[in-house]
Amino acid sequence: MSQDLSLQKFGLIKRDTPRAINLDPLQTGGLLTPEAREALLEWGDGYSVCDYCGGMLDQIKTPPIFDFVHKALPAFIGMDHSRVTNGARESKFAIMHAMTSPGDWIVMDGNAHYSSIVAAQRARINVKLVPKTPAPDYKITPEAYTAAIEEVKQQSGKPPALALLTYPDGSYGNLADAKGITKVAHDFGVPIIINGAYAVGRMPFNGKDLGADFVAGSGHKSMAASGPVGVLGVNEQYASKVLQKSPTHKNKEIEFLGCTARGATIMTMIASFPSVVERTKPENWEKEVSDARWFSGQMEALGMKQLGDKPHNHDLMFFEGSVFYDISQKTDRYFLYRELKEKSIHGIKPGLTKNFKLSTLGVGREKLGFVVDTMKDIIKKYSG
Amino acid sequence: MSQDLSLQKFGLIKRDTPRAINLDPLQTGGLLTPEAREALLEWGDGYSVCDYCGGMLDQIKTPPIFDFVHKALPAFIGMDHSRVTNGARESKFAIMHAMTSPGDWIVMDGNAHYSSIVAAQRARINVKLVPKTPAPDYKITPEAYTAAIEEVKQQSGKPPALALLTYPDGSYGNLADAKGITKVAHDFGVPIIINGAYAVGRMPFNGKDLGADFVAGSGHKSMAASGPVGVLGVNEQYASKVLQKSPTHKNKEIEFLGCTARGATIMTMIASFPSVVERTKPENWEKEVSDARWFSGQMEALGMKQLGDKPHNHDLMFFEGSVFYDISQKTDRYFLYRELKEKSIHGIKPGLTKNFKLSTLGVGREKLGFVVDTMKDIIKKYSG
Repeated sequence: MSQDLSLQKFGLIKRDTPRAINLDPLQTGGLLTPEAREALLEWGDGYSVCDYCGGMLDQIKTPPIFDFVHKALPAFIGMDHSRVTNGARESKFAIMHAMTSPGDWIVMDGNAHYSSIVAAQRARINVKLVPKTPAPDYKITPEAYTAAIEEVKQQSGKPPALALLTYPDGSYGNLADAKGITKVAHDFGVPIIINGAYAVGRMPFNGKDLGADFVAGSGHKSMAASGPVGVLGVNEQYASKVLQKSPTHKNKEIEFLGCTARGATIMTMIASFPSVVERTKPENWEKEVSDARWFSGQMEALGMKQLGDKPHNHDLMFFEGSVFYDISQKTDRYFLYRELKEKSIHGIKPGLTKNFKLSTLGVGREKLGFVVDTMKDIIKKYSG
Repeated sequence: MSQDLSLQKFGLIKRDTPRAINLDPLQTGGLLTPEAREALLEWGDGYSVCDYCGGMLDQIKTPPIFDFVHKALPAFIGMDHSRVTNGARESKFAIMHAMTSPGDWIVMDGNAHYSSIVAAQRARINVKLVPKTPAPDYKITPEAYTAAIEEVKQQSGKPPALALLTYPDGSYGNLADAKGITKVAHDFGVPIIINGAYAVGRMPFNGKDLGADFVAGSGHKSMAASGPVGVLGVNEQYASKVLQKSPTHKNKEIEFLGCTARGATIMTMIASFPSVVERTKPENWEKEVSDARWFSGQMEALGMKQLGDKPHNHDLMFFEGSVFYDISQKTDRYFLYRELKEKSIHGIKPGLTKNFKLSTLGVGREKLGFVVDTMKDIIKKYSG
């Protein structure tokens, strides 16, 4: 490489984000537990989990990856089989790629994460989006799935090869009627993926109870794991397709290219797992939902409007912040970010004021109260 | 999940492998630098690098991912463009998937890593293996590539869509005549991938100098990074295909599903990068090669036989250990593993005696001498 390449900017880089309070929807569920932080150092070296590998990641007995992947995880997500992948999007692509042929159709909710659409594009299949109801609800209904599937049938002569539901979606934190929607899909003979990237690891979740044929979950988004790492769930009916082994390398699964999360990522997921199981217990999740609703009410009292499900059922919420937008017109669009940073509150994207989302997961009532007070002070300061 | 699920076996798990001396070919190049160990803790939380993300991982300015991906890394691997991926195998699949259609052919060396073959199977393309020369050399020659490409032409009516060379291979550590082989591929109009999973980050490497159209490298195998993480290199000619953006999400690259190594994995790669650049300087690599050759000579003096390139040009070596195999027939096949473990020497797979591989990268002459002395003592102990 050229002699003059400046290397000084690389090496150890410190993270400068103040984050005494973190409301970033991408981050609240991925904050590591103390156990996971220790696991990082213990298993950080490349290929550390492979000390005793006999050729299949999921079969490793020491550390107990086999028990995690084949016993604990399927029970946790309520599916027949599971695998650990490099992320929810990688889980979705693996399922789509295994289950479809180029030119097939997939029907997915209009609130789907962009990575579901890009995964379908990578699998070279066509996407039909199920429309959401108008603002402010943005709901996804079983009836809309019926209509979308009918449309694909008319257009292509057969039902779509797959369906996908985002549960909850990552914009509004809406929890759709998953049972109703999976029933619609099954009535048409269409297998359905539940993308639970914001559900698995945050809230009580059982794929089979919801009617899922496949589940995608995210370790770094919702399971207090160091990413990229995710989970894939599949029921027996489709297991042989999704978990197909190489014809030449009998112990290597094709869709996972042999193996996936081969290092600290899976070990942090395992390290945090007992805490994650604990936080998804109904009584703990109910507290989170109650905090979210309380926070939503406080924000609305300050003049903001929470869109999506109301009362809300998830920690991820979308707000219309007209009051902040009005201030930004008089000052600049970064004032809110700056003021919150001053108080070490992270999570609303720099520059956003009119519409923003945030997550209250694990923040707790006291810190949420501090956020509300800070917002109040900001409004007061700029309304003088 | 069921009440009786035993969670005690999860949580923080300690790594019990003694590894004062590590000879594991999978692991020697992936041992973290002190900077990378600090980076793990600094960036371990899920989605930590996304604090200031505007929608594209490779465009993030803080931390300096943009400068790394678009300036330092392409210069380091000697290619026009680079991306950070979830591993070398994921790089290979992305290239194969973008560059081929199902039913196409790929020609690859008979020493190829299994993941190259599985990646081709995932891309639903046919694999023609280029035969290696017989034992003990196992060489891959340009002439053999010519013959294999000719065969594909005869069989399918056109040249293969892609070729791949493993440089060096992961069994023998052989460095084939890459320039000669890429020239053969280009003479047939076939673009070629160099799988440098054991080269990039260990030794001087320049993809363009070798004639590569694409490069795959491994962070956890050879760049002192916490995996799964890898690099992909592509030259201008094929960049628009491999780096194609989503038609609906203009800033998301399809083959990477939007983004890849979104956390501690890329930050440990960046943290170790200055050290990795240093160790790949010719004078430092020459010392590694000299250590490997010295070690090979010592092992042969003990009655073992090193297969592959001789004199050897890489730290990864394959040995025929007949002397150990003979002992195992009188005792049990785990004696070697047990005895080495006793001296905190890790890296020869449990149960192997007749054939095994190891890597001397970064171990140093003193510790290698200790390994040789230990081997000598073991032979003496069991030959009494």
